[in-house]
Amino acid sequence: MNKKEAISFYKQHIKKIKAYRLVLSTTLFDRRTIAPKDGNAYRNEMLPIVQGEVYQLQTDPKYIETVLYLAELDLGEVMNREISLAKKSLENTLKFTKEEMMEFSMTEMMANDAWLKAKKNNDYGTFEPGLVKLIELRKKQAQKRDPKKNAYDIFLDDFQEGMDRKKYDHFFSLVKKELLPLIKKINRKQDLIDDSFLYKYYPVELQAKFSKDILDYINFSSDWGYLGETEHPFTNGLCRNDIRITTHYYDHNIAAAIYSVIHEAGHGFYGHQVDPKFDDYMFLSHASSGMHESQSRFLENYIGRRRSFFKLLYGKLQEYFPENLENVSLDQFIAAVNVSKCTLIRTAADELTYPIHIMIRYELEKDIFAGKADLSKLDELWDEKYQKYLGIHADNVSEGILQDIHWSNASFGYFPTYALGSAIGAQLMHKMQEDIDVDAILEKGQFKKITDYLKKNVQCYGNLYDFEEVLMRSTGENFNPQYYIDYLKNKYSAIYKIK
Amino acid sequence: MNKKEAISFYKQHIKKIKAYRLVLSTTLFDRRTIAPKDGNAYRNEMLPIVQGEVYQLQTDPKYIETVLYLAELDLGEVMNREISLAKKSLENTLKFTKEEMMEFSMTEMMANDAWLKAKKNNDYGTFEPGLVKLIELRKKQAQKRDPKKNAYDIFLDDFQEGMDRKKYDHFFSLVKKELLPLIKKINRKQDLIDDSFLYKYYPVELQAKFSKDILDYINFSSDWGYLGETEHPFTNGLCRNDIRITTHYYDHNIAAAIYSVIHEAGHGFYGHQVDPKFDDYMFLSHASSGMHESQSRFLENYIGRRRSFFKLLYGKLQEYFPENLENVSLDQFIAAVNVSKCTLIRTAADELTYPIHIMIRYELEKDIFAGKADLSKLDELWDEKYQKYLGIHADNVSEGILQDIHWSNASFGYFPTYALGSAIGAQLMHKMQEDIDVDAILEKGQFKKITDYLKKNVQCYGNLYDFEEVLMRSTGENFNPQYYIDYLKNKYSAIYKIK
Repeated sequence: MNKKEAISFYKQHIKKIKAYRLVLSTTLFDRRTIAPKDGNAYRNEMLPIVQGEVYQLQTDPKYIETVLYLAELDLGEVMNREISLAKKSLENTLKFTKEEMMEFSMTEMMANDAWLKAKKNNDYGTFEPGLVKLIELRKKQAQKRDPKKNAYDIFLDDFQEGMDRKKYDHFFSLVKKELLPLIKKINRKQDLIDDSFLYKYYPVELQAKFSKDILDYINFSSDWGYLGETEHPFTNGLCRNDIRITTHYYDHNIAAAIYSVIHEAGHGFYGHQVDPKFDDYMFLSHASSGMHESQSRFLENYIGRRRSFFKLLYGKLQEYFPENLENVSLDQFIAAVNVSKCTLIRTAADELTYPIHIMIRYELEKDIFAGKADLSKLDELWDEKYQKYLGIHADNVSEGILQDIHWSNASFGYFPTYALGSAIGAQLMHKMQEDIDVDAILEKGQFKKITDYLKKNVQCYGNLYDFEEVLMRSTGENFNPQYYIDYLKNKYSAIYKIK
Repeated sequence: MNKKEAISFYKQHIKKIKAYRLVLSTTLFDRRTIAPKDGNAYRNEMLPIVQGEVYQLQTDPKYIETVLYLAELDLGEVMNREISLAKKSLENTLKFTKEEMMEFSMTEMMANDAWLKAKKNNDYGTFEPGLVKLIELRKKQAQKRDPKKNAYDIFLDDFQEGMDRKKYDHFFSLVKKELLPLIKKINRKQDLIDDSFLYKYYPVELQAKFSKDILDYINFSSDWGYLGETEHPFTNGLCRNDIRITTHYYDHNIAAAIYSVIHEAGHGFYGHQVDPKFDDYMFLSHASSGMHESQSRFLENYIGRRRSFFKLLYGKLQEYFPENLENVSLDQFIAAVNVSKCTLIRTAADELTYPIHIMIRYELEKDIFAGKADLSKLDELWDEKYQKYLGIHADNVSEGILQDIHWSNASFGYFPTYALGSAIGAQLMHKMQEDIDVDAILEKGQFKKITDYLKKNVQCYGNLYDFEEVLMRSTGENFNPQYYIDYLKNKYSAIYKIK
């Protein structure tokens, strides 16, 4: 094998893997959005078979040989990065047999079905066995992958290379120390801002129409994007020109869908705006989960909660819901969507309490994989944390431990990237405001200037550089969570007139 | 290889093929329903790669050996049928290389994209090159499959085993002779029945709601079925418990969506009600395309246009559209949906003119594959036939040759099964009315008795027997198109008071 042949084989082989991934991702998207539930038994049996074929491709002897051969060569910046990531992925894949991989996949799909049913029926017991099984399987996997390393550290690194408990502990101790006292103070001032109109009756069909208006407004085009509806919002980029996002409509909460749509669209732009030259690679689509969340949380909060963002949009919202909003001014609306309140649902949480929701999950996950959490009482442990940090209790378990989809997908270690992403976003916002006049741009409806800025400074790089390098290129600094802490403290102290 | 091993290998191998088919079918369904168009370039490149893998499985030497070995044995009724169909399919597949198959698939997807664009832009030129290419490829394929046989006969047999031009010529000559004179007479009596209220403004969202009500009424459950929206309605059964149907809503035609929903649900029930014991086989899901169309046309026309069917439903329809229907009685509504009129759109055509639409397509396809049609003038030839038989002309080509999706999927030879299915349906209806009191059952809202009858007498058999055998079992007779001719003549002579 010479270099040219090896590169040619590599590209051809990953193209095949990507073809499989496309049909599998589409089928999984379909499964999560529109597929009738009775078909899942058949689907759950069939999907692992095709996933097993992907495993065969990923562990094909010639592919292994090629990756190891190429990893020793200098292939230029792009290909060097691709191959180093391919090698890391390969080493991980080779720790498991095809049968183990297929079993895990089936367990995961069944747990996901159980979670959906459990949430619907407000019954944790329906989900518990599946969750416990997933945790056990993940523990075994971690043991196989690196018996010397803490399991949770392995998963944290999967989603955000370089992060571990030590670094997150530091981050969350900052969150705890700096934000919890402020949250407590604000809690005593809950009557200051009226947001009750956000929780009137908002017919779902009209919310869906306004969601499309938002997407039009931010140029999230239906030529390359799609908005669906699911129990839990998510984004799935099938390819650069096919970005699927979903939301969930609550008929008594207008803000939830608005901000989940903007959030997922933020992910969507990242998927869409990566440099097209990475289309032919397998590992270069995005820098990390934390970086992905920085883009979604950026649009959702640092842009979407500004008065300037809604200046041209709010009139349309009033038109859809005159009974609820005709006497609510733009300023009143913006004040309401920036209220901070200790509430149960993470995805609907305000910016200030949001990292506490994440910290709770982080602490639980840490305990789970340290063997310190009683798996038969996870729902109670969840509740205790909410009582302890936010002083609230969920009467319905569907608003407690069942609220998020992540654990049913075995995505342990993902949650912290939301808080990290928010912090990265704050740092990016600080720099963006030095570079361009964000409010003036938004007030003129020139939203493309915002997404162009993100494209140029973050998204175009895909995964060519890791998140720290991207951050250095875009902000000229290393990651610094102080921007986030300062942003939240300044913003909410001002809103609630706290000195 | 012994018999037991061979059967075990066969079952395991087709399970893998079926797993691939599931993800491919899902991806194609997604592509036709919700997928953003800009992703199609990537999709069109990737899908044939996975289809190529299916080809590998279908032509795997051990699979070939196994099928040929099993074909010599007596394996019992079910397995004998399965293997004989597997062998036929194999012989066909082996006529082509993987590359030919992949090229065809890509050409087909591109032609389908072009058709969609052409129809939207009302421009035949956008579709023509793709159509001509598909025709050429199909001609070459026919030449390879059986150089001695007429190409069109090969395709007719694909969709309806045993049928050829000779048999269809006979069938359509009957249609022409018996029905055209009646259509002409009715044409002179167009003022007899008012159906203008069907073409008022019907908001699409409300049509979608009523469509769901229809599905509820006929027990087409969302647990195993899904209703989507496409340019052209179709059914795709991913498995017995996952049946996808689609419709198209026209905001100035309430009947179009109602009857396409019932039509596709008819297909859907066939897919859902097959005996579960055929789940593990590959070729036993349904008897033929004609038989499938008999089930859809059955619900659409022989059931869905009866007064008794709408007795319990019509009030709901009036509630959705009081402005259009509050002064229209049930009898007036039923009269309107049974009007016969020479119109342009096949899917919206009445029962009497419907087979003429099919005959036009049949004659065109026959000419195309006999080399008698000038491929550069297909749109004009289409128009000439409509002028000749129905005395009408399409101002918009999207209501002419571009109206149907089939040719863009290279489904030449499919159309005739619609008329054949209608004729089979008439024969089934004749027998059903001898067996049960259809109107009394419908008036009581006992729709399950209707679908149970179809399940027991037709659908449960899947493809265990060919369509003639199923027809013999269900009606005690061979196929006899006279039932169809008599039904139409009697029904429409009565409606239009023609002696």
